[in-house]
Amino acid sequence: MLIVGELINSSRKVISNAIDERNEQYIKEIAIEQVAAGADYLDVNCGTTVFREKETMEWLVNIIQEAVQVPLCIDSPNPETLEVGLALCKYGQPMINSITGEKERFRAIIPLVTQYKTKIIALCMDDNGIPETVGERLDVLKNLYINLHENGVSDQDMHFDPLVKPISSVEAAGKEVLDTIKAIKIQYPDVHFMCGLSNVSYGLPNRKVLNRIFMVQTMTLGMDGYILNPTDKGMMAMMTASQALLGQDSYCMNYLAAHRAGLFEE
Amino acid sequence: MLIVGELINSSRKVISNAIDERNEQYIKEIAIEQVAAGADYLDVNCGTTVFREKETMEWLVNIIQEAVQVPLCIDSPNPETLEVGLALCKYGQPMINSITGEKERFRAIIPLVTQYKTKIIALCMDDNGIPETVGERLDVLKNLYINLHENGVSDQDMHFDPLVKPISSVEAAGKEVLDTIKAIKIQYPDVHFMCGLSNVSYGLPNRKVLNRIFMVQTMTLGMDGYILNPTDKGMMAMMTASQALLGQDSYCMNYLAAHRAGLFEE
Repeated sequence: MLIVGELINSSRKVISNAIDERNEQYIKEIAIEQVAAGADYLDVNCGTTVFREKETMEWLVNIIQEAVQVPLCIDSPNPETLEVGLALCKYGQPMINSITGEKERFRAIIPLVTQYKTKIIALCMDDNGIPETVGERLDVLKNLYINLHENGVSDQDMHFDPLVKPISSVEAAGKEVLDTIKAIKIQYPDVHFMCGLSNVSYGLPNRKVLNRIFMVQTMTLGMDGYILNPTDKGMMAMMTASQALLGQDSYCMNYLAAHRAGLFEE
Repeated sequence: MLIVGELINSSRKVISNAIDERNEQYIKEIAIEQVAAGADYLDVNCGTTVFREKETMEWLVNIIQEAVQVPLCIDSPNPETLEVGLALCKYGQPMINSITGEKERFRAIIPLVTQYKTKIIALCMDDNGIPETVGERLDVLKNLYINLHENGVSDQDMHFDPLVKPISSVEAAGKEVLDTIKAIKIQYPDVHFMCGLSNVSYGLPNRKVLNRIFMVQTMTLGMDGYILNPTDKGMMAMMTASQALLGQDSYCMNYLAAHRAGLFEE
């Protein structure tokens, strides 16, 4: 399981404020909290700072690495911003969020993947947008897989994100993603996954419940990476319990540790 | 989805008291509550009354059917008790809980299945006990399937119970059951399932959390029947949310109804 902490994102008001005020302390605290809560990677996204994105990325990556020694997931649609972040990464193998099957984006991002030997989140979409059916999704992913492979990216460094739509607008959106995971596990057994959980519940009440159940469902089929808020105790409790039930937790030790740490006392 | 309400069972103190006192009102209330909460079938088990089991079954089945008009799941290891209950069933197709691959038990129960054209819960065990691995489970289920089929039982009337062991004692117990469900869906696509949820969490803290997550995991792979307490709002909330995410709930209507009914306000 690979958990990418999502909290350092300038689309969150607290982060954009901290960036505006150059509040190092707050950014460092959020970094430390996420790692303490179980994040393997920290996502760094300052896309909303637009014209100052590169200098903000530089500032963020440097101060985060003063606080924690984990690899970072550099998150931007802008290749120049990605390069600024990647060049500064000191700990472990960095990750890029993200590449797609869109021709122009692929061409712009792939040199960074190979130059910095990164892990790469590959979103299931191309110049035709986000596909609808399992078949269409697999076609997009197959092209992505072939192109990544031809550029020397190993299966282990690929993290496919099937891109889930809200079930409130597309009734079969959840099932399409679940069936896509099943198919990927058969066709590309060595690639990894990465997905966000909140889209699926958009427009419905009790979103936290839906997000957590969707995590359990996708884990059951082999999803092994999530971008999420690791300080959400209920979410992490569900993940730990789910792993114990899937036989991924020797002697239920992590489950019992999570219990003792109070994760189940919501 | 087929939900069998489990609450009318003399191993529960409140039920054995009601039986001792011939408290019709209490039994009827429990029957009505379970049906109102979504039970499709009601399990009727008075196994602990031993020498009075047949007369108790007769009493229970009659008064339950005065209160609700749903089919019953007659639950006893004793064929004579089963026959007493089955002969009195008035509403819909009765179900027997349960048959196994144990030769003597199979021979004793199968005539009742065919005479009363019941649905049958088939437990994954035989004279060698409960199997360990997926392969062994499938061998037991294959024999059961063949023998049921030869006796004229349709696939649609078979409800396989993979029999889950506690993950606290058998680390891979959950995964074995999940893999068994996958394999059954491939080999016998038309049979149904039935399982209890509480065994899996035996010996661990936060059992409710584990039971509910195991329900979500098994549903993800196609499990379509549970023996449970339908008045457990949290459990039913999880089931409803899970069905919405699996694309089994048109326009999320059941999910939204469950929300309005307060199922998510735990």
